[in-house]
Amino acid sequence: MTTRSGKNIEKIPEPTLRRLPWYLSGAKLMRERGERYISSTRLSEQINIDASQIAKDLSFVNISGRTRVGYEIDSLIRVLEDFLGFTRLHKAYLFGVGSLGGALLRDSGLAQFGLEIVGAFDVNPELVGTSINGIPIYHTDEFTERIRQDGVCIGVLTVPISIAQEVTDRMVDGGIRAVWNFTPFRIRVPEHIVVQNTSLYAHLAVMFNRLNETLKK
Amino acid sequence: MTTRSGKNIEKIPEPTLRRLPWYLSGAKLMRERGERYISSTRLSEQINIDASQIAKDLSFVNISGRTRVGYEIDSLIRVLEDFLGFTRLHKAYLFGVGSLGGALLRDSGLAQFGLEIVGAFDVNPELVGTSINGIPIYHTDEFTERIRQDGVCIGVLTVPISIAQEVTDRMVDGGIRAVWNFTPFRIRVPEHIVVQNTSLYAHLAVMFNRLNETLKK
Repeated sequence: MTTRSGKNIEKIPEPTLRRLPWYLSGAKLMRERGERYISSTRLSEQINIDASQIAKDLSFVNISGRTRVGYEIDSLIRVLEDFLGFTRLHKAYLFGVGSLGGALLRDSGLAQFGLEIVGAFDVNPELVGTSINGIPIYHTDEFTERIRQDGVCIGVLTVPISIAQEVTDRMVDGGIRAVWNFTPFRIRVPEHIVVQNTSLYAHLAVMFNRLNETLKK
Repeated sequence: MTTRSGKNIEKIPEPTLRRLPWYLSGAKLMRERGERYISSTRLSEQINIDASQIAKDLSFVNISGRTRVGYEIDSLIRVLEDFLGFTRLHKAYLFGVGSLGGALLRDSGLAQFGLEIVGAFDVNPELVGTSINGIPIYHTDEFTERIRQDGVCIGVLTVPISIAQEVTDRMVDGGIRAVWNFTPFRIRVPEHIVVQNTSLYAHLAVMFNRLNETLKK
């Protein structure tokens, strides 16, 4: 792709993007243990990924290692956190304060990784007007009004599947640019909208299946 | 692979396994709307996946459609739920009752998809002896004793990265066969142990990156 400035940026492959957080947590662990430098070989042993793969993945981020000693851990952590977007807070709304939605509102860990849920929406009169973990719950009808004030562009989707598509459409109409979809429903969105699917249930299905296979052996 | 009975079972590919829950939720939605039959073409329109892909994926499960009318929805749902392991409860322990761990204990949705968390472990004296959502929290040292009584074979890992590997090793030593890893740390396990990685933070990183790309355009 080419940015407005005309500079070519190589789009980072998704598998690389998924591995970078492993390097980040590996580096954090080494820092906790008092290390100052880490080589791709050492990181490779620790997390069981090929050293050449690590070097290749890290070539996408703006960091260079020194021969023999490797990467300076503090810099590596800073550069990775910055690259992965964990150092800036991205405002988000959550839609559907059910069991999973409520659980996510209570998970303060998300803010440490750059996601700040600033409001939640539901239609349940017992929930509207209350708050969870300091996050206010509004009626879904207030969304269009709210988003104008709040400047939010991420929506976390935790509604029942029967309204997943309808709520997604409303989110997109209102100006949401990225949907973090926790429902097992495959939502449809216009091409310019980002969808990140995280279906815990699909992951459970994969795990159950693999587990059954190993138990059969 | 070959089972003891000598029957060849084709190992289902992971991408197929990940798509099946989409068909399940699509079928559930159609049932809610009063439909009795669903064709792959109709399902294809609804969830935007190629009809031939759907038919191919469904060939792995024991269901056959009728020409023109398609699959009977009730049977499709029953067969898929059964195939995906959602109809049997799989007992699990959760390790690390922090922000995310506590949130997962409160998510009763997991039980509807076959995961029954029967106990949690932590070392925090303020948590040990209490319970969340009816699930008792024990001291980590009690694990080896407990697992003998409870017959649990799944461990949900939500500890800090600094102890992720150590806790995994203890789980495996105690008899855990599958680890659902929510930490961003890449744990190492013996070959016969199943690991399902669900790093919310890695998913966040992918979403932030894609979002930045679309905003740049």
